[in-house]
Amino acid sequence: MKLITFQYQEEELIGIVQENEVAPLREFATMEALIRAGLPEALPEERIPLSQVKLLAPIPRPSQDVICLGMNFADHSKEAARFSDTMKRENYAVYFSKRVNEAVADKGEVDSHPEVTSQLDYEAEIAFVIGKDAYQVPREKVKDYIFGYTIINDVSAREAQTLHKQFYFGKSLDTFTPMGPCLVTSDEFSFPPEINIRCYVNEELRQDGNTRQWIFGIEDVVSELSAGMTLKAGTIVAMGTPAGVGMGFTPPRFLKKQDIVRCEADGIGSLTNTIK
Amino acid sequence: MKLITFQYQEEELIGIVQENEVAPLREFATMEALIRAGLPEALPEERIPLSQVKLLAPIPRPSQDVICLGMNFADHSKEAARFSDTMKRENYAVYFSKRVNEAVADKGEVDSHPEVTSQLDYEAEIAFVIGKDAYQVPREKVKDYIFGYTIINDVSAREAQTLHKQFYFGKSLDTFTPMGPCLVTSDEFSFPPEINIRCYVNEELRQDGNTRQWIFGIEDVVSELSAGMTLKAGTIVAMGTPAGVGMGFTPPRFLKKQDIVRCEADGIGSLTNTIK
Repeated sequence: MKLITFQYQEEELIGIVQENEVAPLREFATMEALIRAGLPEALPEERIPLSQVKLLAPIPRPSQDVICLGMNFADHSKEAARFSDTMKRENYAVYFSKRVNEAVADKGEVDSHPEVTSQLDYEAEIAFVIGKDAYQVPREKVKDYIFGYTIINDVSAREAQTLHKQFYFGKSLDTFTPMGPCLVTSDEFSFPPEINIRCYVNEELRQDGNTRQWIFGIEDVVSELSAGMTLKAGTIVAMGTPAGVGMGFTPPRFLKKQDIVRCEADGIGSLTNTIK
Repeated sequence: MKLITFQYQEEELIGIVQENEVAPLREFATMEALIRAGLPEALPEERIPLSQVKLLAPIPRPSQDVICLGMNFADHSKEAARFSDTMKRENYAVYFSKRVNEAVADKGEVDSHPEVTSQLDYEAEIAFVIGKDAYQVPREKVKDYIFGYTIINDVSAREAQTLHKQFYFGKSLDTFTPMGPCLVTSDEFSFPPEINIRCYVNEELRQDGNTRQWIFGIEDVVSELSAGMTLKAGTIVAMGTPAGVGMGFTPPRFLKKQDIVRCEADGIGSLTNTIK
């Protein structure tokens, strides 16, 4: 099931995609409310043509910061360590967070923030969304806590990320979290999921990975974090990016104004954003 | 003006402390709503004796993660770097964040999380709260964006903080953010504020600093972060801790069950929590 958040006649609604239409779920004010309540048993009769709606990010204003994994693909881990010492990983997962005041939708714009960065970079990632409050969840139960998957472009200002040692600021600039195009429920994938994730910059393929290459998988992450912290329903965890980001090239190939970044995942769709 | 969030007759209310009473501001559902709306011009007539209320953290469930500075006192920066390479700071502020599902009130308990850590530590800090959305605020205007100040104990699981390289997980365990006892409006302090902050463990003085020792001050932090990210009204920024944390001792003196940690700041009050 593909869920979207969208604008239609001045209203912000959520709904289920049905081919070229969407069935709006008007009983839920937000995607987070739907996640907490669970999917409805029956669909409404109302249908709105997709051509008449404006897509928003599936969770446009996450209640809490997005949790991210750093260096969770072996090949990206190598390119990142070469770029900066702060990006060395040892035998433990690297967790950081990203403030998202407003996630950018498919077709939305990413601000290049020229006052802050000249090293703007992309990171195509699969993120999972927690379906019910998770505390001390053993590995074998993790599957039951996963509501669904989406794509996140973990846009990064590399000098802010590395000079300040901790990644937070360089990851949290306004518009640095394109998300979408939809949230796909976990029953549409095997578990753990095996999803191809690719990233194109101006139609040139830059990243091409599969979630089976994650160093730490969803079971590792949820069992480890939930051992001490409650991951509330709606929590978003972005699982890291494959090799091929701009800082991985010699010389680096950072993003510039007018670039078009397209992140694509089989079974989810594509998330295209222009740098402004 | 000292603002509190409290429970009274099953209701969660906010109010203004008036000597031994509190004037409840029933028109605001939360402290964040009051911050966004601004302080009311006149006080209500109703008074509730403080002895009849249960104090909650001033912002019990922050809308976004708490932003923290690492190594923002020179003497603490030295003790931290000695403990772990991940805690070295260079010439830039170290920003990280801390998830706070529910901030712990004065007199509340901090979970020792023995499954996750054997290196539980305290960090007494002054935090400021943003009063209105801040984007690209120049240094000289920062003062106008500060709503008030509170005390935070930035409780930390040191091995989780250092092994995972980025601090996020080791800072974000449930109950790791005692906050309070109240939120004091900024007009009660000079700007930049000069506030003594102390921490006692079982009544032994461990930390004793003043906010004039901050390496990066509020003007630095707000002007730097807001250059790229909107700090929404209600955003909490904890400004770092003085020397004297448990990891700074040889051998380290980490917290154990039954320890009582009291953080104290002149003009704000004291925040006392028991380790359970």
